[in-house]
Amino acid sequence: MKPTDLQDYSHKRFNILTGEWVLVSPHRAKRPWQGQNETVNNEKRPTYDETCYLCAGNKRINGELNPNYKDVFVFTNDFAALQSDSPTFSLEEGLFVAKSEKGICKVICFSPDHSKSLADMSPGEIQKVVFEWQKQYQELGSNPMINYVQIFENKGAVMGCSNPHPHGQIWSQSTLPNEVDKKNTQQLNYFIKNNSSLLGDYLKQEQEKQERIIYENDSFVVLIPFWAVWPFETMIVPKKHQPHILSMDEDEAFLYAEAISVITKAYDKLFNTSFPYSSGIHQAPTNADINKHWHWHMSFYPPLLRSATVKKFMVGYEMFGSPQRDITAESAVKMLKNLL
Amino acid sequence: MKPTDLQDYSHKRFNILTGEWVLVSPHRAKRPWQGQNETVNNEKRPTYDETCYLCAGNKRINGELNPNYKDVFVFTNDFAALQSDSPTFSLEEGLFVAKSEKGICKVICFSPDHSKSLADMSPGEIQKVVFEWQKQYQELGSNPMINYVQIFENKGAVMGCSNPHPHGQIWSQSTLPNEVDKKNTQQLNYFIKNNSSLLGDYLKQEQEKQERIIYENDSFVVLIPFWAVWPFETMIVPKKHQPHILSMDEDEAFLYAEAISVITKAYDKLFNTSFPYSSGIHQAPTNADINKHWHWHMSFYPPLLRSATVKKFMVGYEMFGSPQRDITAESAVKMLKNLL
Ligand SMILES: O=P(O)(O)O[C@H]1O[C@H](CO)[C@@H](O)[C@H](O)[C@H]1O
Ligand SMILES: O=P(O)(O)O[C@H]1O[C@H](CO)[C@@H](O)[C@H](O)[C@H]1O
Repeated sequence: MKPTDLQDYSHKRFNILTGEWVLVSPHRAKRPWQGQNETVNNEKRPTYDETCYLCAGNKRINGELNPNYKDVFVFTNDFAALQSDSPTFSLEEGLFVAKSEKGICKVICFSPDHSKSLADMSPGEIQKVVFEWQKQYQELGSNPMINYVQIFENKGAVMGCSNPHPHGQIWSQSTLPNEVDKKNTQQLNYFIKNNSSLLGDYLKQEQEKQERIIYENDSFVVLIPFWAVWPFETMIVPKKHQPHILSMDEDEAFLYAEAISVITKAYDKLFNTSFPYSSGIHQAPTNADINKHWHWHMSFYPPLLRSATVKKFMVGYEMFGSPQRDITAESAVKMLKNLL
Repeated sequence: MKPTDLQDYSHKRFNILTGEWVLVSPHRAKRPWQGQNETVNNEKRPTYDETCYLCAGNKRINGELNPNYKDVFVFTNDFAALQSDSPTFSLEEGLFVAKSEKGICKVICFSPDHSKSLADMSPGEIQKVVFEWQKQYQELGSNPMINYVQIFENKGAVMGCSNPHPHGQIWSQSTLPNEVDKKNTQQLNYFIKNNSSLLGDYLKQEQEKQERIIYENDSFVVLIPFWAVWPFETMIVPKKHQPHILSMDEDEAFLYAEAISVITKAYDKLFNTSFPYSSGIHQAPTNADINKHWHWHMSFYPPLLRSATVKKFMVGYEMFGSPQRDITAESAVKMLKNLL
């Protein structure tokens, strides 16, 4: 293998966390774009919007009033995809297989300031969001009905976000979702075989190589994983082998907030726009007796490819075959690193 | 379990072909939509567009002239994601794992008429597309470098389609993509255990139940699978246990074309728009010695949810957890069946 092969020719890379592959076609970045352009709204928003159902003091759709919150505010989703009071049932009629799924869905406002996003907040302000994530993981996880807590954010209209007020969501449920289940299996198999953390060992390799690391501080590394799918996908990984976000102390929570701040700011600079993405934290199930194999991490999946208006479409081949990317992880790292 | 449970409460359903789950939240269809609206172009297109690189007689980006084709025309993709002349290499450096991937990518024009889509073509015209798919599967498959042939179509700007001229793609490659690999495993395991086709047995159950079937003719059934992810996802399944599209004779090819015609016409009527989707055929690998466990099928994944401008976003929870849908397969069937 020549050192340039991965930068020049189509190949597939293995995702050690899911056990799946991504097709990489570096030469394809050269094709001209004739497809759909997204509309971008770079308009500055007011700090308070009286029509926003997430702003402090405003009324939500169900008639409830938001409190005059000062930093972070959490409430149960008014249109939750998962309910806690639904009946328990299960269907196994030949090849029709279904099971009831219970859960609790929450919305978390990151700031009362309607005009901001995480990229505009200070690490100190983001740290309060991290504290709230920890509290929610703890509280929801202690509910016997809940086994997994999925923390995520959809940012930007192009990511299905219906309100620009800075907020994320927390969907917690009885069973493990598909993606978590895959990562659970891969990490467990590795841990049984090597008695060490899969992601920890991977991180060591990345630290030696210094080819895909964008930023690091005392406790966290921000990198583009070797197997990244989205053009500017990144991952924040704790240096310590921690199964979930509750393992972080206050200082680490600040360093984590700093990492979030650094990458979201770089994103906004990349195409000079409020950068859309979905982000999420993958961590240990909450009622796992054995969760030692888990190494929690946060990923950002941003859709933009070439500019504020041209995104990567995950369609035909990607839906029926495998995810496919044009620019390599290594060249995306260079672009983002230049913006720190 | 009460008969209404699946229509009223959140639950998960098992996809027998991939081994994965989809979260269904029927009650959530009631939430108001405040998010992004797609722009729709319902403008009638001319039958010939001199700026279109797929119209007959026109020049493509690489300078080549399209022939004056009369029905179907196939050429090698000018910006192929897979190449046939790239070097062979493989990397296994600890947890960095990559392999070269070779292949051939083609574009298939369904008609010289720029204004049409499959929904506007007669079953006889679509049958010619089917014949070409068969020919390509045969030809590409006989290349020792190729083990799998992915036939697909991205239709509509919202599905990343850069040119409205009716066309699809064929990406063929050395190894099995993720989704095909999952379906290979599930079908093989079932076949070993039961000595019959997984999808064939499933089809029998659907035919007895008559709850999710939209249309059938002598050789094909169009249905919404029990585990459908996209709001109006459908599947065309041959009644005979056939591993790949070459197993079809001419008459069957016509009946298949008829099934494609029926569902694409219903789609266009649903929201009174040229209905966007990605469609794809999953079938046996081309160099499989044993492919008896495969039962080929075609799926349509359309993004629209409520109208021509409101789509379902597969974002945060879907990317990090599991796919999630609001309306149930059963209610989507009723809507589509009404339009036949
Ligand atoms: O090949 P096209 O039509 O230019 O590109 C389209 O389909 C491909 C295959 O699904 C995707 O990888 C691209 O993101 C999409 O824009
Ligand atoms: O809950 P929201 O923000 O209304 O909805 C958004 O996020 C959900 C979770 O990823 C998705 O299921 C929806 O398709 C998307 O529009």
